[in-house]
Amino acid sequence: MRVACIRHAGERRVGIVSADGQSISPVALSSDEAARGVAALIGKEISALDVLSPLPLASVEIEAPFPRPDRNIFCVGKNYHAHALEFSRSGFDSSAAQGELPPFPIIFSKVPETVVASGAPVLIDPEVSPAIDYEAELAVIIGKGGRGIRPEEAMDHVWGYTIVNDVTARDLQGRYSQWLIGKSQDTFCPMGPFAVTADEIDVADTTVTTWVNGEVRQNANTRDLIFDIPTIVATISAGVTLKPGDIIATGTPEGVGIGFKPPKYLRDGDVVRVEISGIGTLENRFAERRA
Amino acid sequence: MRVACIRHAGERRVGIVSADGQSISPVALSSDEAARGVAALIGKEISALDVLSPLPLASVEIEAPFPRPDRNIFCVGKNYHAHALEFSRSGFDSSAAQGELPPFPIIFSKVPETVVASGAPVLIDPEVSPAIDYEAELAVIIGKGGRGIRPEEAMDHVWGYTIVNDVTARDLQGRYSQWLIGKSQDTFCPMGPFAVTADEIDVADTTVTTWVNGEVRQNANTRDLIFDIPTIVATISAGVTLKPGDIIATGTPEGVGIGFKPPKYLRDGDVVRVEISGIGTLENRFAERRA
Repeated sequence: MRVACIRHAGERRVGIVSADGQSISPVALSSDEAARGVAALIGKEISALDVLSPLPLASVEIEAPFPRPDRNIFCVGKNYHAHALEFSRSGFDSSAAQGELPPFPIIFSKVPETVVASGAPVLIDPEVSPAIDYEAELAVIIGKGGRGIRPEEAMDHVWGYTIVNDVTARDLQGRYSQWLIGKSQDTFCPMGPFAVTADEIDVADTTVTTWVNGEVRQNANTRDLIFDIPTIVATISAGVTLKPGDIIATGTPEGVGIGFKPPKYLRDGDVVRVEISGIGTLENRFAERRA
Repeated sequence: MRVACIRHAGERRVGIVSADGQSISPVALSSDEAARGVAALIGKEISALDVLSPLPLASVEIEAPFPRPDRNIFCVGKNYHAHALEFSRSGFDSSAAQGELPPFPIIFSKVPETVVASGAPVLIDPEVSPAIDYEAELAVIIGKGGRGIRPEEAMDHVWGYTIVNDVTARDLQGRYSQWLIGKSQDTFCPMGPFAVTADEIDVADTTVTTWVNGEVRQNANTRDLIFDIPTIVATISAGVTLKPGDIIATGTPEGVGIGFKPPKYLRDGDVVRVEISGIGTLENRFAERRA
C-alpha cells in the first residue's frame, strides 16, 4: 500500500494512493488524527479503514508523509562502503572513525521541523553555510515500538518506508563535531512524497538514485548497506525505546557533492530528485533564502 | 519565580512555588495545557495567572518541569575548561576536537523520552552498558523562539532555567561516534525539580554541585563555561529555528566519573544529587533494571 499526506480543501488528509498512482482516497479520520499524517495509520488495519471518494492525485497538494515527526529523526551516517570512503577522503569527516569503515553504526539526529514536502523549496542561507549537500536515503518507519528488539525480530517492527533527503551543511557538520547542527538547518529534510507499507519493497533489492539538475549523482542498491535495517533497529532499541512513527534514515550511498574535487555544492535554483524503487520520486528545488 | 510540574489527585498541574519553598499554588489551566508542564506557562504573564489554593509541597508528587519536551533536548559537550581536559584524557572522547578545548560548541541531542523527575529511578541495564556516568548541567529554557538570534539579544529569548543530569553511557558514547545513543538511553535525563524564570539567577555567578552518595564530585561556577549562553543560543539559532520550550543543557563541569582513574561508574543503589544555586536540588537513585 502506498499512502500520502495531502492538503485538500484547506484540510490535511491522509490517503491511500491507487495502484496506477492517478488518484488518492482519503481515509476517514478526525482532523486531530489526520494532523499526525501517516502516523495516524500506524497500528490500524489499513484494509479495514473507511475511505472517502478518490481524488485525482494531480488535484491535491502533497505534504510530507510525517509533516512533523514526534521527535528528532534518527539517521545513520557512513552506511554504504563507497560513501564511507568518499566521505573520509573529503576532509569533512569529524567522526572518530575517520579514514575507515565505521566499526559500529554512527547514529545522529535531525530536528523534526526540518521536514518539508516533495516540491517544497529547501532554503540555502549563504550567510550560514555555503556548503550545502544532498544525501538520498531510504527511511524506515517504525510501526511497533519496543526496547531490546533483536535483529531477527526487527523487521516485525518496521511499518514501512519513505524517502528522505538528509540535506547537510558540510562546513557546520565538521565545525561542530557532533552533526546535529549541520543536519538540522531549517528545511533540510525533504521527505516523501509517499510512504509505503513494508510489504511493498524488498530492501535487499531496492535502488536509490539521485539526480541534480538531471545529472545522475547517486545510484546504489540498499543491499549494499554496511549495517542492515535489523542491525540498526537492534542498535538503537538496545537501550532507547523505539516508538511507533519513529523515522530512521538509513544512510546515503556514494556520489554526494563532497565526493567530487572540488566539491559540487548545491546552489540557488538547483533541483535534486531522489528516486527509490517502489516508493516514488522526491524532488526539491534549492533556493536562496531572501531576508 | 520558581515553578514546578506536579501530580495531584491523579492530575498533572503546573504550579508556582512559594518563596519559602513550603507550598505550591496550582495555576488554573485546562488539562491539555497542564499536560505540557511548564511549557504551558511560556508566553504567559505569570503574575497575571489565576492560581488556586496552595498545597503543601510535601503533599504532592513532583514531576519533571518538562515531562516530555516537544523535541530532543539540545546539549552542549565539553563546555567547561577543566572538564574538556578530563574528558579528552579519559580516552572516551570520540569528537574531532580530541585532546584540546573545542574551537566551536559541540552540540548534540537526547531524545525527549529520557526525561524523568527528581526522585525517579534512573535505570542501569548492565547488558547494555556498564559505564554509566553523571553530568550535572544548568539547562536553558527558551521562551521566545527565533532564527538568527544575535548574541546581544539572546538573553531576551531565555525564559528561564532548570537542572539536568545529562546521564551518559560512556562506552556507547564512544562506540557510536556520534553521541545520540550514549546520551539517549531510557531514563537518562533527570530534570528539575523546579524551573525558575530568568530573573531568579545570575548565570555569571551560579554554582553547580554534584554529590554521589554524599561525596562531592563536581563543584563549579557557570561563569566558567567556555561558550556562554548567548553564544550557544546564537550558534544553534543561526540556521535552526529555536522554539518556545526548547531545552538547552549547557554542559557539565569537571568531576565526572570518567575523570577518575579507574573511572567511577554509577552502580545499583547510587544516589546522585545535583544542586544549582537559585534553582534547587535534583536527586535520583540509580537502579539496575530487572527483566
